Amino acid sequence: MSLASLIERHAPTLAAAAEANRTRTFFAHWPEPPSGKIYGETASADGEAAFKAQLNTPFTRLLQGATPDAVGEEQSPYGFDLGITYPYTDVDTLVLRANHAKLTWATLTPLERASILVEALERASKHFFEIGFATQHTTGQGFVMAFQASGPHAFDRALEAVSVALEAQTSSTDAVTWTKPMGKISVTIEKSYVIRPKGINLVIGCSTFPVWNTVPGMFAGLATGNPVIVKSHPGATYPIAIVIAEVQRALADVGVDPHVIQLAADTVGAPIGLDLVRHHEVRIIDYTGGPVFGATVEREALPLGKTVYTEKAGVNCVVVESVKDANAAFDNIAFALSLYSGQMCTAPQNIFVPATGVKVADGTVLAPADVARLLAERIDALVHNEKAGPGTLGAIQNERTADRVGEALDLGFEIIRPSAFVQQPGFDQARSISPLVLWAPVDRADVYEREWFGPVAFMVVTESFDDAVERVAASVRAHGALTTLVYTTDERKQDAAAEALVDAGAPVAFNFDSFVWVNQSAAFSDYHGAGANPAGNATFADIQFVTGRYNVIGIRKQA
Amino acid sequence: MSLASLIERHAPTLAAAAEANRTRTFFAHWPEPPSGKIYGETASADGEAAFKAQLNTPFTRLLQGATPDAVGEEQSPYGFDLGITYPYTDVDTLVLRANHAKLTWATLTPLERASILVEALERASKHFFEIGFATQHTTGQGFVMAFQASGPHAFDRALEAVSVALEAQTSSTDAVTWTKPMGKISVTIEKSYVIRPKGINLVIGCSTFPVWNTVPGMFAGLATGNPVIVKSHPGATYPIAIVIAEVQRALADVGVDPHVIQLAADTVGAPIGLDLVRHHEVRIIDYTGGPVFGATVEREALPLGKTVYTEKAGVNCVVVESVKDANAAFDNIAFALSLYSGQMCTAPQNIFVPATGVKVADGTVLAPADVARLLAERIDALVHNEKAGPGTLGAIQNERTADRVGEALDLGFEIIRPSAFVQQPGFDQARSISPLVLWAPVDRADVYEREWFGPVAFMVVTESFDDAVERVAASVRAHGALTTLVYTTDERKQDAAAEALVDAGAPVAFNFDSFVWVNQSAAFSDYHGAGANPAGNATFADIQFVTGRYNVIGIRKQA
Repeated sequence: MSLASLIERHAPTLAAAAEANRTRTFFAHWPEPPSGKIYGETASADGEAAFKAQLNTPFTRLLQGATPDAVGEEQSPYGFDLGITYPYTDVDTLVLRANHAKLTWATLTPLERASILVEALERASKHFFEIGFATQHTTGQGFVMAFQASGPHAFDRALEAVSVALEAQTSSTDAVTWTKPMGKISVTIEKSYVIRPKGINLVIGCSTFPVWNTVPGMFAGLATGNPVIVKSHPGATYPIAIVIAEVQRALADVGVDPHVIQLAADTVGAPIGLDLVRHHEVRIIDYTGGPVFGATVEREALPLGKTVYTEKAGVNCVVVESVKDANAAFDNIAFALSLYSGQMCTAPQNIFVPATGVKVADGTVLAPADVARLLAERIDALVHNEKAGPGTLGAIQNERTADRVGEALDLGFEIIRPSAFVQQPGFDQARSISPLVLWAPVDRADVYEREWFGPVAFMVVTESFDDAVERVAASVRAHGALTTLVYTTDERKQDAAAEALVDAGAPVAFNFDSFVWVNQSAAFSDYHGAGANPAGNATFADIQFVTGRYNVIGIRKQA
Repeated sequence: MSLASLIERHAPTLAAAAEANRTRTFFAHWPEPPSGKIYGETASADGEAAFKAQLNTPFTRLLQGATPDAVGEEQSPYGFDLGITYPYTDVDTLVLRANHAKLTWATLTPLERASILVEALERASKHFFEIGFATQHTTGQGFVMAFQASGPHAFDRALEAVSVALEAQTSSTDAVTWTKPMGKISVTIEKSYVIRPKGINLVIGCSTFPVWNTVPGMFAGLATGNPVIVKSHPGATYPIAIVIAEVQRALADVGVDPHVIQLAADTVGAPIGLDLVRHHEVRIIDYTGGPVFGATVEREALPLGKTVYTEKAGVNCVVVESVKDANAAFDNIAFALSLYSGQMCTAPQNIFVPATGVKVADGTVLAPADVARLLAERIDALVHNEKAGPGTLGAIQNERTADRVGEALDLGFEIIRPSAFVQQPGFDQARSISPLVLWAPVDRADVYEREWFGPVAFMVVTESFDDAVERVAASVRAHGALTTLVYTTDERKQDAAAEALVDAGAPVAFNFDSFVWVNQSAAFSDYHGAGANPAGNATFADIQFVTGRYNVIGIRKQA
């Protein structure tokens, strides 16, 4: 397929994406239901078969030269080893290949690159079900969530990044005949403007969202002409490896060196992430993961003037002052706490309730103890719903996350809802536990203002609504947050909270009580992250998310 | 005047600026000739009178609270003390006032801010002549250049920054009703998006272009909602103080706290720049100046995740391989070397000529010695032109710059053109000297790859054109450059040079032999700086120049 026909084929998609980014209305290029009617009646079975065939065999789909070594140490949180190995490529080889691949990639026009990348996404989307199973059995997400998060939702985020990058790069003309009138004479210069990618774009992935958190930086880097190296998490390589292999094939099919995108697989014992971060040819770094290694990445890269986009960790808070419908509100909070067992960087952790209780529209007031009881009840209703519970909770990716529940219990705080083992149908060995909710004394900010990643939440009673908002704002400034969620039916209180929390640098959600949860951000409409607090500086995908990846350089010729 | 009427009044200007930025055709909102027909028959005399009245008196036009202390140590390079004092404001007071002023400034819409800023520029433009005299007698620039560089050219750069900032901030909607269809039901969220300025924007000015190099960052910072503190150079405060005072008045007239923009005047003996750089409320820094303090700014600010835009120093090179008209080409180079005595960050320093000589379109070949003779002759013709010479050269801002000519002579390199004292009519004490041009042996890159800021140039003979281009590319990578200039009539050589130099990260100009010089970049058309080499990361004004100054934060409400 020629470049010209790719451009023609994907022009409507790119136009729709650009329009969605401008208007921020609902738009999804890939539908979210894992339905046979949409993706083909055999798609699910085919995906599962591909997944099973891949287990315990080398992953050979990458177009990434031959390497003698292989690595692989993925374990399903549902209780078995994946047994897949990936080619190991050393840092120097990765950099050498990336630089070579850049030579042609950087000379394509932004529209050519964008069209190739949409084609790559379309091809990779044919593997949504395998990606879903691969995600389920590396991250522990329930299958439906795994399908959506690594499939349509992630791919829409990737398309969004491609679109924002294309719009930014083409916002000015790439050539002009410039004539300056100077009284009776004039002077003419032929000008052109070249997009110059900054260098190698390293993307460091995480174990919980190996596709969703990787593709925005990966596609933004590619769309702006940079070669990209994806350093996947050793515990969650399979899902992104499928995507990378498909992108490589789409590149090769139009005659582009597939090493424009490479997988850098390593092991927990012999990690290569820091060597890549430090390499002088690596000029852009996207990082998602824990705050400790994130701080190391920043310390190494920022003083060298490298572009660094981070999403580290934060402490997400909820304030409940008044609600229209208490059951609906706490169902929403219960789901947000339970979804993937709190292993989302956007999941709430601390729930603040004023000592005076929560006002309900029907006139009743729920005392803090009633609120706690209601929350426990709504979590129970979800967890014990045989159809919805296990899939919502999924399994715990990392043993240390599971251990944290024990640590929380050791605090000796009063228990609102105890955690318990959850049976995952078909997977007796799954590491699955339901959320623990504790009362935290308001003066124990030393505890609740730490991130307790996983199924641990705290309820905190504050003097008043204003007091709660102030505490949340201070927490955002000190520890960062990806989300905040406030329940108040009072519009003046809404305005005050929005002002305080936006000023602190956090996105704000109000009164969620339906099929939208604070954990989720919609591509083309919601920015993911604010980039304005210690949780990180990356935002999927504002303009800044792409403009740090290239320069525009002028060429002037006397006419 | 109401905000609504300001928006209406300046809409055509903002629309024209946005269109110019997109199309990059010639556009100048303020005409460059210092002509009475354009700016009013008495404008020049009025400006000179205002300048003379200001000498030896305190500058009282700032709306910047009362401060007990005053500082001022400006000296005209034309040989007299200005004797002007400026209010001194300590760092804590500056920060306190800036933060207070931000409260309202940040809540205005991007269009409101942009309209107020255009109004401020229009008002300040009424002082172009005084600004011109103030610039001449702080920087040493000849008057016409001073008028243009600090007046129309600078103001067009400021308008450009305002326009780029407005377009970026309004590229997506600020509110939407978002409805997600979910089969038989749907869910609706009311969304809004808030521009959140990052914090205080510090702009550190330089002594040679106190307005031109300050206003892009200053107006980009203001346009994106940040309060701005301008730390002017103690040797060149007067011109930017006039601008700041007018912006403050324009703000106050629409009821905005004028401390949105403040002048931070200090002294060489007790500088406050670094204290401001380090202050935790300062989140954005624009820096123009020497590379040593520039490196300090980066070392202090980058690890803290502050946004830093720098323009430090570079070594700008010329390669001459073949020309259409030798006199026209070397007239152009001679002017570029002489304009403001090489005190432009964009001025050429090193001229590379292949050993085989320079081919002229008429068939002759100029041996390197002929080339040197021709260059010296064209410089002489300009310098000794009584009408054009002194005004083109201007005076040397800093004594150390003048001393550098002596240091260059001490190298013992063969002299192509000796430097000499230049008489500036009316100013017998002016520090004015003509350019020194030396032969530099090609193996003395240790000398010529250093920046010799001021009227010092080197001619270097290389093996070939390709050798010269390679050396220039290597120099750009190692030492940075704001400009490169190549003369070759061979289109294949042009393509090869453009590829190599853009890859190294420098803008490229070809065959300039008319009324455009490599030193000059045209607002709305030429980016100033590439942001892609060690000379700095700032570019006036690409999109990145504004997007690092704010975040976009989403607010979602369940409908």
